Parts: sequence; C-alpha cells; structure tokens
Amino acid sequence: MEDIEIAQENEANKIQTITAVAGDIGLDPTDIEQYGPYKAKITTSALERLRQRPQGKLVLVTAINPTPAGEGKSTVAVGLADAMHRKGQKAVLALREPSLGPVMGMKGGATGGGYAQVVPMADINLHFTGDMHALTSAVNTLAALIDNHLQQGNALHIDPRRIQWKRVLDINDRALRHVTVGLGGPTSGVPREDGFDITVASELMAVLCLAEDLGDLKERIARIVIAYTYGREPVTVEMLGVTGAITMLLKDAIKPNLVQTLEHTPVLIHGGPFANIAHGCNSVVATRTALALGDIAITEAGFGADLGAEKFLDIKAPVLGKTPDAAVVVATLRALKYNGGVALKDLQTSNLDAIRTGFANLERHIHNLQRYGLPVVVAINAFATDDPAETQLVQDLCADQGVKAVPATVWADGGAGGVELAEAVTEALSATEPFKPLYPQEMPVEDKIQTVVQGIYGGRDVEYARKAQLALKTIKANGWDRLPICIAKTQYSFSDDPKLLGAPTDFTIHVSDIIPKIGAGFLVVMTGTVLTMPGLPKHPAANDIDIDAQGHITGLF
Amino acid sequence: MEDIEIAQENEANKIQTITAVAGDIGLDPTDIEQYGPYKAKITTSALERLRQRPQGKLVLVTAINPTPAGEGKSTVAVGLADAMHRKGQKAVLALREPSLGPVMGMKGGATGGGYAQVVPMADINLHFTGDMHALTSAVNTLAALIDNHLQQGNALHIDPRRIQWKRVLDINDRALRHVTVGLGGPTSGVPREDGFDITVASELMAVLCLAEDLGDLKERIARIVIAYTYGREPVTVEMLGVTGAITMLLKDAIKPNLVQTLEHTPVLIHGGPFANIAHGCNSVVATRTALALGDIAITEAGFGADLGAEKFLDIKAPVLGKTPDAAVVVATLRALKYNGGVALKDLQTSNLDAIRTGFANLERHIHNLQRYGLPVVVAINAFATDDPAETQLVQDLCADQGVKAVPATVWADGGAGGVELAEAVTEALSATEPFKPLYPQEMPVEDKIQTVVQGIYGGRDVEYARKAQLALKTIKANGWDRLPICIAKTQYSFSDDPKLLGAPTDFTIHVSDIIPKIGAGFLVVMTGTVLTMPGLPKHPAANDIDIDAQGHITGLF
Repeated sequence: MEDIEIAQENEANKIQTITAVAGDIGLDPTDIEQYGPYKAKITTSALERLRQRPQGKLVLVTAINPTPAGEGKSTVAVGLADAMHRKGQKAVLALREPSLGPVMGMKGGATGGGYAQVVPMADINLHFTGDMHALTSAVNTLAALIDNHLQQGNALHIDPRRIQWKRVLDINDRALRHVTVGLGGPTSGVPREDGFDITVASELMAVLCLAEDLGDLKERIARIVIAYTYGREPVTVEMLGVTGAITMLLKDAIKPNLVQTLEHTPVLIHGGPFANIAHGCNSVVATRTALALGDIAITEAGFGADLGAEKFLDIKAPVLGKTPDAAVVVATLRALKYNGGVALKDLQTSNLDAIRTGFANLERHIHNLQRYGLPVVVAINAFATDDPAETQLVQDLCADQGVKAVPATVWADGGAGGVELAEAVTEALSATEPFKPLYPQEMPVEDKIQTVVQGIYGGRDVEYARKAQLALKTIKANGWDRLPICIAKTQYSFSDDPKLLGAPTDFTIHVSDIIPKIGAGFLVVMTGTVLTMPGLPKHPAANDIDIDAQGHITGLF
Repeated sequence: MEDIEIAQENEANKIQTITAVAGDIGLDPTDIEQYGPYKAKITTSALERLRQRPQGKLVLVTAINPTPAGEGKSTVAVGLADAMHRKGQKAVLALREPSLGPVMGMKGGATGGGYAQVVPMADINLHFTGDMHALTSAVNTLAALIDNHLQQGNALHIDPRRIQWKRVLDINDRALRHVTVGLGGPTSGVPREDGFDITVASELMAVLCLAEDLGDLKERIARIVIAYTYGREPVTVEMLGVTGAITMLLKDAIKPNLVQTLEHTPVLIHGGPFANIAHGCNSVVATRTALALGDIAITEAGFGADLGAEKFLDIKAPVLGKTPDAAVVVATLRALKYNGGVALKDLQTSNLDAIRTGFANLERHIHNLQRYGLPVVVAINAFATDDPAETQLVQDLCADQGVKAVPATVWADGGAGGVELAEAVTEALSATEPFKPLYPQEMPVEDKIQTVVQGIYGGRDVEYARKAQLALKTIKANGWDRLPICIAKTQYSFSDDPKLLGAPTDFTIHVSDIIPKIGAGFLVVMTGTVLTMPGLPKHPAANDIDIDAQGHITGLF
C-alpha cells in the first residue's frame, strides 16, 4: 500500500480532533487556534505559559550518511514516539515542516511512512497552516522593497550587483535559478541579474527557526544583511526601514503547529530549513514547546549526523538552551552496504562484507556523538526484505563499540514495532555525562572550520578559494567572526566529494565561499556546489497526482 | 481614527467566535473548518446541502466611475448588510478577497472602512485562510511544469515564445514585470522572455471564482490554454497531464470563507479577480452560499458599473444561474464633481454646477442597469465634510429619473447609518421586472463588443489593431467565439481614455488584443494598457507598518 492510502484509510477511521490531542497534553481549546479539525497552532499566551514549565528529556534522532532514497529518520522518530506513547510515557514529537516543491517532483512525503506517519498527511505536505507561504510572501516582499529602493533613487547606495537577498518560491523550478529582472524600461525597475531559491533555502526560514519568540524574530530580521553598498558596507533590513512589515507577515508563522501521528501521539511540526546552507532542524519554539509539554521530547536533524546533528549541537542547542539527553542514529542495511561500496542497484542483495566495510561510516557518527557526551542508540530501520544475518552483524558490530543497536519495524507495525527501541532509548536517557561543546564561540572562524573538519568529518585540512578568503576579511571587518559556522556540504560523504563513501580520512575540504547570515546568526561555509533551487525530473510526480470531484487524492506519494 | 485602530479596538471588545456567527445562520460547528477563532471555511458537505435550499434575493452593489481614491463600494455593502441585520432581516454579505500586494504599497484595506468593516481586518488583508497563497502556488507550479516540459525534450512542441501562462506573486513588484528565465546553462532551463503578474490577475483566480465546485474547477483547469505550439495549435493543461495536481492545490481554496462585520453580520469573503482583465467579483460558490444562507444576499462588483456590473451580469450571472433582484449604485459627491470636471485637489469645495455636470455619469450607469431590468437605488456614501445642498441636488436629480438616492453614513455610524438605504433597497426588491440579457452567447465576438460599447459605454465604434484581428481569427478557428467577452478598460471613464470623464459620446474604443481565457470561459478584450503587476510607491506603506513583541500592529491602514 502507498503511504497516501495508509494515511487516508487510517485518517478516516482513527484520526482524533486536534482539540482532543491538545487536551491529552493539557492544552485547553483556548490554547490552540484550529486550522480545520485536525491541525492547530498554539497561541502566543499558551507558549508564554509553557516557557515557565520544567523541561522534559530531549532525544535527537539523526542518521548515518544516507543513500539517495533517505534512511527514514522521520519514520523512526514517529515510531519511537508512538512506542513511548503506547508505554504510557508522555512523549511529544517535534519535526520539520515539509516543503511543497519536492511534492510535485519525486514521490515521497516528509511526514514519516507506512504506519509511522503524521496526519493529516496530504494537508501537512501541501499548504498545511500556511507557514511556508507566509515565508515566501515575506521573502519576496522584502525583495520587492529592495528593488523598489533602487527604482526610487537608491538613497542607501546599494550596489545592484551585490544584493544578497534572493526571491523564493516553494516550488522546484530550475528555470528560475538564474534570471534577469527589471527589464522593460524605466518604469519597470532597475535591470540586474538575480535568481530564485526554494523557500526553505532562504535565510528567513533559518531566522524563523532560531527565533525564540516574535520579539526575537523582529530583532533577527532587523539584522539580516540584504546587500552591500558601492563602498562594500553591509545594508540591513533595519536600514531599509521595513523590519516591522516583514515581521508582521510572520506573526502566525512563528507559532508552532500541532498535529498527531496515526496513533494519536502529539506532534509539533514547525519550520524546515535546509541542512546544508542552514541548520536543518525544526524551530526552537517547537522543540522548546515539546520539552514543556512532554516528559520526553523527540526531534530530528536533517541529513546525516555530520551535517544535521553537528548543526543541532553547535548552532541550535546554544539558542535552545538545552542539549540532547540521548541521540538515536538511524541506519539501514542498504545505507551500510552503500557506504561499503555496493552499487545502488545491488543494495537488495545480502552482503556481509559490505556491511562490515560500511559500518566504518556508522562507527564514526557514533564516536562523533559520544564526543559531545551523548549516549547513543542505533536504530536499524527495518525493511521486509532485510536479511536477519545482516541485521545481527550490525548489532554485533555496535555491541563491540558498547552501543545498543535495535531493529525497528515501525514502517510496518507503527509504535508496536518500536517498543524495543523505546526501551533502549529510555535506558540511554538515564546516563548523566555532561555535554561537551565542540568549539567555543570566540574561536577564530578558520579554527572552527578546522575543528569540525578534523573532529567530526575525519578530514585533514581545509583549502580556501580566493572568494572565501575575501569573505573571511569581510566577516572579520564587520565583527561577525564570533558566530557559529554552518558548513554546506554534500550529505553523502564525510568529505565534500559525494562519491567518497564510508569513513574517508586524510581528505581536504575545499571552501569556495563563506556567506554571513547575520539574522540567522551563523556563517555558511560553502563546499562544492549546493543547489538551492531544485529542478523537476523528466516524469514529475505531478503527472501522477489526481483528485476527484469529492476531494479524494491519489498518486500523491 | 484609522481603520486599523477602529478594527482592533472593536475586535477586542465585540468580535464573536466564528462558531457563533455560523450558528446564527444555521450552520453547525461541523459545517465549518475553523482557521483560528474568527475565520472559517465552509465544508464541502455543508456546501452541497446548501445547494438544495431555496435562494434568497440578490442585491448587487456597484458604483459610478470613481476617483483614484475609490468611492467605498465595500464600505456601503457592509453598512447595508449591517442595517438589514439590525432590522432583523437575514442578510448575508459576499465580498472579494483582498490582495496582499497593495497592502505594502498604498494605505487602504479592502474590508470596508470606519464602522462598516469586516473583521478580523488585519488577518483578512494579510494571509487570511491561504487562498491567495494556494493560487500563487498553483499558478507557479504549473509554470514550473511548463518550463520543465521544455527542459525535458518538449514533446508537445510548445513554442517558448508563445507561452501564455505567466508566473505570479501576490506582491507589488514592478521589477518582475519583464524578466528572462532559464539562464545559466543547459541544466537550468530553456532561456526565454517571461514576466510575473500579481496573483489576482491570473486566469486561475477567475477560474476559481467561476467554478461551481471542485469537479467544475478541475474541468476548467483542464481547458486552460497555457501555450501554442510551433504550428499555432493551443496547448492545454490537460495535454500537459497535470490537471489533477493543479486542482489538488486548490482543494481548500475552493471553499468560501466565513467572517463577520463589526456588527456580527455574516460575511463570505472569497476570491478576488481583477475587474479589467477578469470579471471582478467574488466567487460563484460564495454568492451561491450567501443566497442559500440569507433571505437577502448582498454582493459587489469591482470598479464602476460599466466594468464590474456589466461583467457580473454578462459573465458571472449565467454561471451563477441567478441575476440580481436590485442594484445599488454607490456615488460620492467627490466622484460626481470629479466626473463634472473638477480637479482632484478641489474636490472638497462645494460646486453644484460640477455635481450637475458629473451627474451625467451616474445617470448613464442608472440607465444601463435599468436596461437589464434591474431596480436601482443610489447610495450616496457620505463624508463628514459633505455639503447638504450638494447631497440634496443629487437626490433631486435622481428623483427626476425616478430613482431614489439615499445618503449613507455607514463609515461613521455602521449599520445605523444605513437604515434608510436598507429600506429603499428592500422596497426595490419587491419589483418584478424580468431580467433582460445584453447579448446572446451565439452573437459574433465583434458584435458582442459593439453591443457593450454602444449599449453600456455610450461609444460609437470599435477599432481593432492588427494583433486583435489576428486574435479574432485564432478565436474563430478554435471555436471559442461563443464565449462572453470581458473588456479590459480604464476604470475612470466609459471610454478607453481615463481623462474622458462624465458621460462621453461618439468615441471609439481601440482594441489592442483579444486574449482567450478558456478555463475562465471568456475572451479578454484589451483596450489601452492594463498593468497586471503593480509597483510600489516612493514611500511604501511597508515603511510605516510595525508590530510589537506582543503582536500589536500599527500603521497597517
């Protein structure tokens, strides 16, 4: 059965009203703003009240370096929460908000899968409560105000060639990657080269996800560097005088969204920045709310642990004021074999040697997380076709490292398939090692990069292209060098070469540019090329999607 | 006091929950989908049930040719509904949905004004229930799919120079009027000239507003002509194979939105197409729902009666299956004087001669509406500074035509200021003259245009530019000539010259192009230039807007 079929069938039979879900975690109907019967935002006054509460334990779900298909972090996170929910624990899940763009491209939703799904699935993957659209609207309004500033005399002396703020759409649209705007004569703008990103790649998404509340959001928006002048001085939103207007457009988007799993476990879905050019995890507001509402809050970070978990720990945790109490590393047999050198088409075939070789990748992620002082549990996201001998081998290899590896059949069985995992995680939560940050804020930028490259990636050194060297100067000159770094790198390798699988060593990381994101509060260290506007494939998923006159959707996932 | 202050103060004190407003018109909580406590969509099943109900009377609010400030159609419509509501009549209002773009440009909301406002005002003018964003998303997804079709081999032989489907944003952004897309090499699309419209100018907005339900919406979307081939054959959405995907994105946007006036009168706000290149009135679904829920449904049509009312009667009414039972023509003393030749800066000065001269404009609109068989009432939208002698003169001049003209002080007094108007309208509703359509569908396109130009505008003849002549051939060759026409013309004059005020005669209308909108089901007859992407002014409203950490908005209107 397809995910959409499971979701629709189960939604119809079992979904609870969102007021009931809210009630289960102690929220009154007046604490939520309903968006239809099954979605809600949590009100500002409820959020303020919840900030006074003691926080629960925090579980971070991350993964090994994935295959192109992804290894099911969200599915495992959902199943783990459901398993805890079944055991009567007060578990609340916090997940990223899906982007609509990919929905029309490749099949595959971002709300878990099988019987470990968040519902209403189609709504969450389409317009949800409008957060992405509000972001798109705010980003493009700001862009229009910048171009209008050029049009109306350019009092701020903005260099049109050095505008940093790009327009966005929540759509996979490669034809918008490189455009020229302002054509058509003097009444239609100042001509310049420009480009569109996908909405989730915008700095404003990262800003929304790191803001503590509306006031902090406004301060961060004010600081965003939108351009440089002809004299190379940074121009901010505040200087343009539109901080209030842009913040106003996000007044509802800052409130986290409450939904449920197929097993009625409460889920906060809020914010979804890229895990390469941004920090790749849901909003600080949502995680904080999950910590206040649950005894255990479960959250995830994008891509493998080298990207997602590192950024969670070094960028998000300091803002959150809370570090994880345990980490779950999701692995699949196919990803282990892929990291062990097996071609995509052969991943279904049993291959113990490849598992053994590929385990080096998982092992490095485990050690990296332990370096921060985190207790680690490995979740083997199980497929019906998995070879039990391979699974056993992974468990043995993990046991050699003193780490428990637990198969989870949550896709097929929902929470019932995650009970053993839940027990292992609960046990891990009782450990009490203190958190050890990777680098201090005041460390010079190059040293921070070196620290991540050596300490997390296992590489040797870092090379800076001329553009990156110039960027470093700008960063120092403006006093931005105390910000944490956010390395944009391929998700497929510890290195910046997507083909270098497993656990490579002695490699060099090539930094092409360093982009200050002053509103978000981090420096994006670019390695290789990161596509910030995806394209559609030859046969887009849009061609398979249908809806009948009664509103029944088919072919969505 | 500013509109936003009146709205926020009164909202805080008096707004009812949307479930209570729904309850007052016989809708159960399960008949609506809440979007926060004060906004809701009506469910598909409730809409289906309501379609079986007998329909109330329909009042169309229209206007004389306006000044650039607008004459307060929405304000009068709100006040009229409130006055009827006060009298205990079951009145339901149906209005257009505001566009977010202008909010950042010029001050002025689209939800009435003063004490005749629809609330929650800021929400309705910002993201509301996401309809505009869903449209933006659907339009741009379709555009991305078209460009992707070019990229992936162009099996349909689409001529990239003849793509009709433009991208949109709900933003005033002149720099996007003329752009080139697809730059950056072979992996980033096929380079071509393109441009963005504002969302409300897209054919898809007109399609949404004319669709009877989700099934009809899907059929209309399938028919939309997105491009022509190298052989000049039309290419439709259906041929691209993405009808289902685009329709799915509008599954919630098709449901009308329920809100309330400051006096708790129920209001359906849904859809807002341009009144020049489209038909300028709220959705068929909303009007039909208002007719089912109320004994009297009050609705409005954009710009002056030459544009809005004509299109309501000739384009929307045949789809709606219902014609108005009375028309209210909104006039102001300033608009009458403006049409009488007074300069904008002198409109505050009393000038009975100018009123007398400008009355010719109002008189022609009255006769036009009477020609359709509609009883007419004139509403004089009153300002505190109005000269009573001028008001009396307008009433006398109307009385000479056998028409009642009633001053309405609804901006200052809410429903209490519209009681006399409500009585005049109620009286007009008892008339029983049958509706007389202006032209039969099968009339040739040129004759339809001639009929509107002579019969409504009072002009003499029509000139076709070469492009329009070629378009006529395409229209005939494809069998599209039975569609109604939708003339895009300046709102300031009966002619196509915005400076020709009053009631000009003997003029020629210059048709520059005729654009078939096959999904919407009309032919847009272009006269003069119509800007489908507005720009921002030198001092945008965005610079005056602010929001504090508690979410309190200032400077919005």
